[in-house]
Parts: sequence; C-alpha cells; structure tokens
Amino acid sequence: MSQENSEVTKNTQAAAGRGEAPATLQAQVDEFLAKSVADDLQSVLDGEFPETRQAVRELLNEVDMLPSIGLPLEESREAITGKLQQVLELGLPRGVFKEAQGGTGDTGQSLTAIEMLGHVDLSLMVKVGVQWGLFGGAVGNLGTERHHQMVTDLMNLKALGCFAMTERGHGSDVQSLETTAHFDPETKEFILNSPTASSEKFYIGNAARDGRWAAVFCQLYTPDSEESKGVHCILARIREDDGSAIEGVRIGDHGYKGGLAGVDNGTMMFDNYRVPYEALLNRFADVDENGNYTSPIKSSNARFFTMLGALVRGRVTVGAASGAATRTALDIATTYANLRRQFASDDSLPEKKLIEHRKHRLRLIPAIARSYGLQFATNKLTSRVHELDHRGIDPTNMNDKEQADQRELEAHAAALKAANTRHATDTIQDMREACGGAGYMAENYLTTLKADSDIFTTFEGDNVVMKQLAGKELMTGFARELGGLKPMEMVRFGLDSFSSLLRRRTAADRIIQNLQDTFTNSEETSLFDPAFQVKLLSEREDRLMMSLARRLRPARELSVSEAATVVDKAQDHLLAVTDAHVDRIVFEAFLEAESELNTEQGKKVFEQVRHVYFLSTLLDNAAWYLEQNMLSGTRTKAARAALNDLVDSLGPWSQTLVDAFGVPSQMRDTMLLENYDEMIPLCERTPAAGQKAAQEKEAQQ
Amino acid sequence: MSQENSEVTKNTQAAAGRGEAPATLQAQVDEFLAKSVADDLQSVLDGEFPETRQAVRELLNEVDMLPSIGLPLEESREAITGKLQQVLELGLPRGVFKEAQGGTGDTGQSLTAIEMLGHVDLSLMVKVGVQWGLFGGAVGNLGTERHHQMVTDLMNLKALGCFAMTERGHGSDVQSLETTAHFDPETKEFILNSPTASSEKFYIGNAARDGRWAAVFCQLYTPDSEESKGVHCILARIREDDGSAIEGVRIGDHGYKGGLAGVDNGTMMFDNYRVPYEALLNRFADVDENGNYTSPIKSSNARFFTMLGALVRGRVTVGAASGAATRTALDIATTYANLRRQFASDDSLPEKKLIEHRKHRLRLIPAIARSYGLQFATNKLTSRVHELDHRGIDPTNMNDKEQADQRELEAHAAALKAANTRHATDTIQDMREACGGAGYMAENYLTTLKADSDIFTTFEGDNVVMKQLAGKELMTGFARELGGLKPMEMVRFGLDSFSSLLRRRTAADRIIQNLQDTFTNSEETSLFDPAFQVKLLSEREDRLMMSLARRLRPARELSVSEAATVVDKAQDHLLAVTDAHVDRIVFEAFLEAESELNTEQGKKVFEQVRHVYFLSTLLDNAAWYLEQNMLSGTRTKAARAALNDLVDSLGPWSQTLVDAFGVPSQMRDTMLLENYDEMIPLCERTPAAGQKAAQEKEAQQ
Repeated sequence: MSQENSEVTKNTQAAAGRGEAPATLQAQVDEFLAKSVADDLQSVLDGEFPETRQAVRELLNEVDMLPSIGLPLEESREAITGKLQQVLELGLPRGVFKEAQGGTGDTGQSLTAIEMLGHVDLSLMVKVGVQWGLFGGAVGNLGTERHHQMVTDLMNLKALGCFAMTERGHGSDVQSLETTAHFDPETKEFILNSPTASSEKFYIGNAARDGRWAAVFCQLYTPDSEESKGVHCILARIREDDGSAIEGVRIGDHGYKGGLAGVDNGTMMFDNYRVPYEALLNRFADVDENGNYTSPIKSSNARFFTMLGALVRGRVTVGAASGAATRTALDIATTYANLRRQFASDDSLPEKKLIEHRKHRLRLIPAIARSYGLQFATNKLTSRVHELDHRGIDPTNMNDKEQADQRELEAHAAALKAANTRHATDTIQDMREACGGAGYMAENYLTTLKADSDIFTTFEGDNVVMKQLAGKELMTGFARELGGLKPMEMVRFGLDSFSSLLRRRTAADRIIQNLQDTFTNSEETSLFDPAFQVKLLSEREDRLMMSLARRLRPARELSVSEAATVVDKAQDHLLAVTDAHVDRIVFEAFLEAESELNTEQGKKVFEQVRHVYFLSTLLDNAAWYLEQNMLSGTRTKAARAALNDLVDSLGPWSQTLVDAFGVPSQMRDTMLLENYDEMIPLCERTPAAGQKAAQEKEAQQ
Repeated sequence: MSQENSEVTKNTQAAAGRGEAPATLQAQVDEFLAKSVADDLQSVLDGEFPETRQAVRELLNEVDMLPSIGLPLEESREAITGKLQQVLELGLPRGVFKEAQGGTGDTGQSLTAIEMLGHVDLSLMVKVGVQWGLFGGAVGNLGTERHHQMVTDLMNLKALGCFAMTERGHGSDVQSLETTAHFDPETKEFILNSPTASSEKFYIGNAARDGRWAAVFCQLYTPDSEESKGVHCILARIREDDGSAIEGVRIGDHGYKGGLAGVDNGTMMFDNYRVPYEALLNRFADVDENGNYTSPIKSSNARFFTMLGALVRGRVTVGAASGAATRTALDIATTYANLRRQFASDDSLPEKKLIEHRKHRLRLIPAIARSYGLQFATNKLTSRVHELDHRGIDPTNMNDKEQADQRELEAHAAALKAANTRHATDTIQDMREACGGAGYMAENYLTTLKADSDIFTTFEGDNVVMKQLAGKELMTGFARELGGLKPMEMVRFGLDSFSSLLRRRTAADRIIQNLQDTFTNSEETSLFDPAFQVKLLSEREDRLMMSLARRLRPARELSVSEAATVVDKAQDHLLAVTDAHVDRIVFEAFLEAESELNTEQGKKVFEQVRHVYFLSTLLDNAAWYLEQNMLSGTRTKAARAALNDLVDSLGPWSQTLVDAFGVPSQMRDTMLLENYDEMIPLCERTPAAGQKAAQEKEAQQ
C-alpha cells in the first residue's frame, strides 16, 4: 500500500496548491501529476451539477463575498441582506420553484448552489435558505395558485419572509405547536393567537429585521369542532413597509447568538391577529369561505407528514452546506500543515512540517476521507431529490413505490443531516486546534466557520431527533404507516415483520452485487478487499437492526407506560442503527464514485482514501466487532497499523486531496497561509490602539 | 445498583436546585436530603481551599461580574480591565508572590481563585492570569531583588505587563525562539531585535491595549561567544504612560479572535531597542556590567527547563479554569434538562423532561462524572504546587528526590492541562447542543463559554505537545536527564532501563494498597470491585508503557534520521500512554475523595458517580481491553449495560450532582432556565428593531 506513491516527490503537492513555481523538472512533473489527480478527484466530488458549483465558486471569489468579522450586529445583518441581491442575480432562487411558478425547476442546481455558499459564509447560506428555501419552500410547496404572486415577489426579493415554525416550547416536536388559528365565519378570516408564553415563535430567521411576511405554522380550528385539525401553515403579513410591526403582531430580537451574526433571528407573537382565509397555504388541506375543512389526505397524521415531506429540501441543504464549511476548514488546516514547520526531531535535522508528524496526519486524513464519503452520499441525495421532483409525483396520491421512495428520501435526508453536521462540528473544531493559536485569530476564518456551523447540529431538526427518525424508518422498512408515529406507536406496529428488515440498497447496487458474487469469507480475507469491507459494514447495520427488533418486541405486550420505558432504554440502540446505516451508504457511495475516475494515479490515491474511510470507521467501532466475534484482536490491531501506514502514504498527497474540494481560493488569502518568506509583520499592518493614537498625534503636529 | 435511590422521589432534586417550594412533606424530606448530599459532595469537590472558593463565588455573584456579550472590541477590553481592580481588592494577587516580595505566599489560594474565575468569565480569568500569573510569575520567579519594585507595581496594577514568549514562528517549541538580545559593553545595555518576520511576538495578552511592560523571552548573546546562551527573559518597557508605543518597539493588534474579546492580544517587534543590563531577570543566569555570563546551573538545557519549571503554575490554572468553565456548562445544561419537557412517548402520557430520555442522561452524567474526577485530580495538583512552594526548595540546587518531585509535578500539570481542556472543549460543545436552539442564544452564556474556552487546548502549550511531554516524563521514570530532550535524544537515553518504568503512585497509596491486599482476580470479579477497577486502569498504563519501550528500543541502533522516523511512527502510542496515566490518576483521586464524605446517602451517590467514571473510561477503551484479552466481549457488553443502569439510577440525582459544583448562582438567572409558568415573552423584553422604531415614533406623536 504505502509504496504506491513513491513516484511522486513528497511535498510537491503543497507547492502546487499554493501556486509557487517548482524548482526542477522533476518537481514540474510532480506538480503536473498532482494537478491532474486533483482535477480527476474534483470532477467526481463535484457530482451532477458541476457548472453550478463553478458559477458559485466564481461569485464567492469576489472580494466583497468574504465573511465580515467583528461588525456590530446591525451592520452584519445589513451586509448579508445586501449579498442576497448578488445571489438573486446568480439565478439560484428560480431553481427552487417550478416552471408554472415562474421558476426553472432546477432543484438539484439550486440545492447545490446553496450548499456551495457554505464554503465561505454560513450567514449568507442561512439567509438564502430562510428566504428561498424555507419561506419560499413553504409558500411554493404548501400553497396553490392563489399564492402565485407571493412566490414571484419572494423569489425577486420584493417580499422577505420568515418560516415561523419553531416555538419556545416546541421545536423538534412540531405536532405539539401551540399557536392557534381560528376561523371566523362572520369575517371569513383566520384569527391568529399565541395563547401561552411558550407559544412564542422562537429563533425565526428574518424576523428581527428584514421579514415583512411569515409562513406561520399553527393549530387550525374550524367551526365544526373544538379540536384542532392539526398543524397547518398560514401566510401572514408581519410588518408594514416601513419596517414597523403590524398591529396584532409583536416581534422580538434574539440579538447575539453563538454565530451567524448576519442572520436576524427573532420571535413573534400574535394577538387576535386577523388574516383573510385565503392566507391558508392550502395545497394539502383547504378551508372554504364558510369554514368547511377539506383535504385530499384522509389521515391527519399522513397529512402532517406529507406537509413536512414537502419541506425535506431544507434538511438536505443544511447537511450539504455544513459539509462545504467542513471542507473549507480541512482545506485551510491541510494547507497550513503543508506549510508550517515546528519542532525538529534532532538539532541536526530541519524542523518538520506539521504534516510530517504522525499525529497530525491522523487528525487530518481520516477527516478528509470522511468528508469525501459524505460528499458522495450527499451528492446522491441531492440528485435523488432532483429526480423525484421531476417525476411529477402527486404527494396527495402516491402509490406504494412512490411512498417508499419518499420515506427513504426523508430518512436519508435526516440521517445525512445528522452525519454531515456532526462531522462538521467535530472537524471544524479539530481543524481550529490543528492550526494552533493562528487558528483562533478571527481573520483566518476558522473560528467564524466554527461559530456559524455550531447550530447546524440543532436546526432543521436536532440531530438526536433526526437519527431517531431515520432509525425508525429503517426499522420499519419504510412502511408508510409508521413514519409519523411516536415511539410507543412504533412498538405497536410493524416490528414483528422481520421480513421487512431487509436493507434497501441505495447505492452502487451493481458494483456491490459483482463484488459479492466473487466473495469468499475467511479469517484470511484482506481488510482491503472491497467485498469484505461492504460485508463488515452491512453486517453491523443488519445485526443492530435485528437485535433492536428482538429487544423491542416484548414491549408490545406491556402497558403504554411500561412499554415507553422499554423504548427509552433502547434509545441509544436505535441511534446506533442510524449510524451504522450512514456508515454503510457512505461506503457504497465511495465505491460508486471510484468507478468514475479517469486517471490511473487518481484511482490509486482514491482507493487509499476509501481504505482510510473504511478502516477509521471500522476502528471507531472496533469494540463492537470484537464483541460480536466478527473480528479478532489480531485483525483490529492490523487495521490500526494499516490505517497508520495509509496516512503516512497519503501525507504527501494531502494537499492534492483538499485541492480537489475546489474551495473558493480566496479563503486561502489569509495571514495563516502566508509563506514564511513573504510574511509581513502584523504590527506593520495593524498597529495597536495606543501606537495608532501616537502616530496620529505625530501626523497632526 | 439502580434501586439504591428509590427512597428519594424522582425529580425533587431538580426543584431543590431551582429554589422552588416543594409541595408535600415527602417532597420537603427529599429536598432536605438532596441538599445535604449536595453539601457533602461540595465539601469534597471544594478541596483544600474552600474559603477562597467561597470568597470568589461571592465576588462573581455581583451583577456587574456577568460576562458582557456583544460589546465592541474596545469596550469588551475596557470592561475586563476594569474588573481587574475588583480582583485586586479580593486579595488574590498577593498570593502569587512570596512574603519577601510583599505577597502572602498563599500559592494554593491564588491558584484556586484564578480557577474559580473560570466559572463565569474566562476573559477575566485570562486577563488575571496574564497580569499576575504569567507576567507577574515571570518577574517574581525569574527575577531577583533588583526587580522588587516591579513586583510591587505589577501586583498593585500600577504596571500592566505582557508575557512575551510565543512568536509567530515558534510557540510550543520555545527553545527555537528567534528574538535576540545582544549585550553592548559600551553602554552596558541589551539590544533587543526581532530579526525576522517570524520572530514577531504573537498572541501576547495585554499587548494590544494595556501593557506598559513586557517580560521578553529571547536568545541571549554576550561578547564571549557568537552562540546564543539560550532563551532568557528580559524585562522591557513597551509603552509610554500615555499608551503610545515606546520608540524601538512596534506593537500590533490581533483584533477579533474566536472568543476572549476582553483580552487585548497583540504582537510586538523590537528594532535595536536598548534596555539596561539589569533588566535581565537574573535568578537562574546573570550577566554582569562587563558582559560576563554566569549561572548556578551548568547545563544550558537544565537551565532552560528550570526556568520553564518556575512557570508551571500557568499550566495548572489553565487546566483548572477550563474545568470550572466546564462545570458551569454542565450546571446550565443539567438544570435545563430537569426543567424542559419535550416529546411524549404516547399521546396519553405527559411530555418527558429531557433528563428522562436515556440518550440525554448518557450525554450529561458521564461528563459530570469525569468533571468530578478531573476536579479531584486538579485539586491535588494545586495542593502539591502549594506544598512544594512552601518547602523552600532551591531550584538551582535540587537533590534527586526534589528533582523527581518537580518533574512529576510538571508532567502532571501538562497531562492535566491537556485532559481538562480536552474535556472542556468536548463537554461545553455537547452541553450547548444539549440545550438545543436556546443553547445557541448568547444571553444564556453557553456560546461564550464555548468560544472563550476553545483556545485553552492550545495556549500554555498545545495539548499534543503537553501530552508528549507528560508521556516522555512517564516513560523515563521522571529521570532528570531526559525531561528536556527532543524525541531523538529520548531514544538514545534511558529507555533500556525497564526497571524505571515502575509507575509512581501519586494518589491514595494507602487506600489502594489496602484494596490490593484483599484482591483476587478472576473472570467473575465484579466490575464494581474497586480493586479490580484500579487494576484494569493501571494495567492499561503499564502495558502501553512496556510495549512502547519495546517499540522504541531498536531505534537506538539506527541513524538519527531513521530513528526519528521510528519515533514519529510511535507518536500516537506515546500520547496513549499519557491518556492512560491520566485516566488512572483521576480514578485514584476519586477513591481518595470518597473517603472524605460524611453522609451515607452522599457516599452511595458518590460511589455510583465513580462507577460511571470507571465504566465510561473502560468503554472508551473497550477495543483495547478486548484486543489485550483482558476482558471478554461478554464483560464489555455487561459494562455497557451497567453504565446504562447507572445513568438511569443517577438521573434523579443529576441536579444534586451539579448543585455540588457550587457554580455562582447568577449563571442560572437566564432565559434558558426560566420556569414555564414564569416566562415572559422575549418580544416584550427586546422588541425587534423595526418595532422599536415604530414605538418611538408613536411616543413622539
């Protein structure tokens, strides 16, 4: 393994990445090779919509697109609002909407464009996501023709709006929202109210400053019953043109957050606030002028989940954009590691580059490998959303296959949202640390990436909830009836149908089938055998699912509260199912991507990256494999040694691996990544306060 | 195990923690019991200097000590500088200095006081640490009587100063600093210069705004030789009284960082800047007026490490204060988990508190247990520094025992600095996430704790470097000769002396001896048997050390560069030795603390906390134990089940466990921790911008 790269001189890739002129002919050859490998890898990483990626890269390389640091809150917000116009000019928003709505229907392209914003500025990504993805998505996907003008206006930034779902008391548990909308037959209006302090709409983007409208999620009441018809969404004006709150709406400001200073999160409450009945976004349920409630979907539970399902894109982009932010952090830290020298092994030796320290390679390269895999899996998810969107499926009338596809899509969106954002939070933190004190200086972007991405584990659905959701879907073979159930109901349904536990393959079916046809298992099978790799990852998922099903089965005979205890005790087991599932589908996405490479050297490097992903995943779960007697201690030790060899072998390729991410290059124009022979002292660039005052005084004299 | 707490009604502790009136007699009894347990636990956690903790708690409960959020940079700095005066009045600084210097010599008290500041505001803690710990420590410990006036002035805040060690090019590798000081015989002065861009002093606290003086670490040159005498420290004026930079000194401003907005980090460079020769802090090496260099310590290596050793307190306080910050985060998130309800298992059941979800307990309680253990170990370290300080040891003339004690102290300071700060970074992040969106609102403090504590893994020595340092000390049986060696030199010395690998016990010797005397090992030995627990943790450390020694031994026969490769390849192994060592000494500190409890119920709860610490540590390393055939898969599975039972059992005690931390109570006066029946909507407290403008307009009309 570790000898495969010997034809390439160490560290040349680093020079290539920074655009330095290589000194010798050999170095030029090496640089050419590194560049061709980076291009090959990037073509695979860029996925189905490379033109979109390139267009956004160009936009993001304009100087004024750099994240602003240290601006006061209002100025940060103003700066981001200003940048929305540039994104509009890029054409991104039209992709969010169907052609009949004045859009282009380029779903995949628009999702990819929002993802790409995450490379540079998550405040901008979130602002774009709130305006066009969430608010636009609610009006576009939950509304009907009568909301056409609003779609046009919000698309063109004539109407800025909020996605007013979360409340103080309920975030992840949307069905328990407390805001009410009562139909008034006399005036044919809905009356919006916030009946409790905990019903205050909370954390709402666009609320504190810019929003003029809101898509308000609320319990709907019609005259025929005192019971809620369930959570529905109503379009409501919240501010006058001059920015003051409209009467009947109170708006609060969350002020400073851990990050995302450019996003104006706020709160809102409604006091007998009346809106015309046509304000109901009525695609999946309607109320006529007499207050009669109708819906093409009979079950209120199914209706609710159809509505939420129409909003799945938000989850896709949150995961994808946090992936982009992670790649930026890896790009910065890896470039730094190929530049910065610290510590010599001996006075007689030169100081080593950080990348030449084993521990440093173990920090960077497995994280890079996981980012590769997550990007492949996320690209497939984006393509899948695009494809399903273009099938013209009627969500109110899906056949079994369509329902299963939709459930699978939602489960994968939830699982990859959790996996991408977990990886982002862990990796961006580690990359900050890998750059030492310099990583803590705001001007080098890592701390902003960290602070801004932090909330991604929580919003668009807390990761624990996302993983539970995905786990439940997996456990029930994506049976439609189970999707929206609370944990207890899950116990009562479905879990006796062990036959439905057969995993659905989502990736690379043909490739994997071929691998399995030729596979024979034995204690000697190589850990580098892709068929064995698939088997080890699949078995973990299968066994965890089977053992969980056995564990939950007795709960069906118990009382509700006793059964609830059984379910709670199995919560970590359910989450482990989702983790195992993600690990496998990411691996399968790796295999599929591998078949698309064009250069021999690219394939060799890529194969090693896949091995790193596989081995580090295996080792993260080594205890489980040992407990299951699926691997011996000798083999897990061998896996650890092999991982060490691989990061040694890939060390010289580390710069190439991150070059292939295609991070907008101006993110490298930082003090952190200056060459030592070009460094300008900071004290010449930013004199400290007292010194500056003295200089000014001197100039005046 | 899990039945032991049944006498206490669930969730009553939560009410006790928030000062609500319990409803029934039984609830009153429960509250009384919870309070007595919390008091008992706190008396053990508070360690040797409880009065100091209490005094700082009271200071920190004054309203104006709350961390400021969202202030512009200069105002943040100004606010923290102002608070220094309050800390001065508390008497903290005098403890840093010896009686002969006008101090009190209360080392332990001053270290504890600085630690306690970390509960509320790490900017203040760092500012205090820079002024009195680092700058004061340098002048006080490296200087002599001729620097007495400066000690007085800096103690009383008449002279604010910088600890100018780190440079852009070299941070953790202090011996390679580039700043120079040349002795000029004609004027009897040192001439300070910054010869390269990479020699710019970087990240220096107090430099950008407040500092008038700096303790400058530099290569010292005297006329007798063109070679540096090594790194020494010189006291230099850097600013005029009016705050402008003094001629010959250029000062830069780092501006915004990831956090610590109240600390004015900056840079400095010297241009033929002359200082009198008496400015050399000359305790360990002197230059007379003719430029003759003398030192009571012959070896330059030994001199360097003696000098650094005198500065060990900085490392102790950084670890300790990050521990305090972590406990605050745990306190906030645990109180929230006992208050906040979300999700019902079934429509017929009430929504569950977060703490009633298994996954949530698994997030909070093992982290609380580790915080307990780290605090016990850190308390012992503080007491040890205090004790050694009071022995009046002459660092220039230590006997073997004293040298060994000093080395052990430094290794433990380094190891616990790394362990505490790693735990802080991971836990504060996880507690932010455990509070969902509310955790991301700056007003609730978690994001500030996160942003401020982030750099603690890096400063006062990067954690990887700290762990290497500690590992090397452990590997060489603390032999003096090896302490300062580069990795290669480590190979050449000492590692053949396997006999010196016997672990030194640092804690609870008698207790552990008693345990071991009665211990018999078998496959049936309970995982709850403390003797078996000690054995499992000790064995991991021992075996890792032995296998590392075997692995490095062949390197002695190799060339320098080949041997360097061997050492690099073993880097992760060396780091694992330190981790195993910390896990063991923390466990031993647990055992020692356990013997100090006074109440029966306190002992029962405490024992479970120790089991949680032990089992979660064991499970984090389950793969290793399985690979070593020290535990069977059946036993590691049993350990996982036992950990789950324990967190279930401790769930109702979770509030009591964090109450015992004694976090200044106003950190709980946040919106996050408001009771649902007392909530005031945010929109009534902070109207959003547009709304506010409208209200003002209305008021004017």
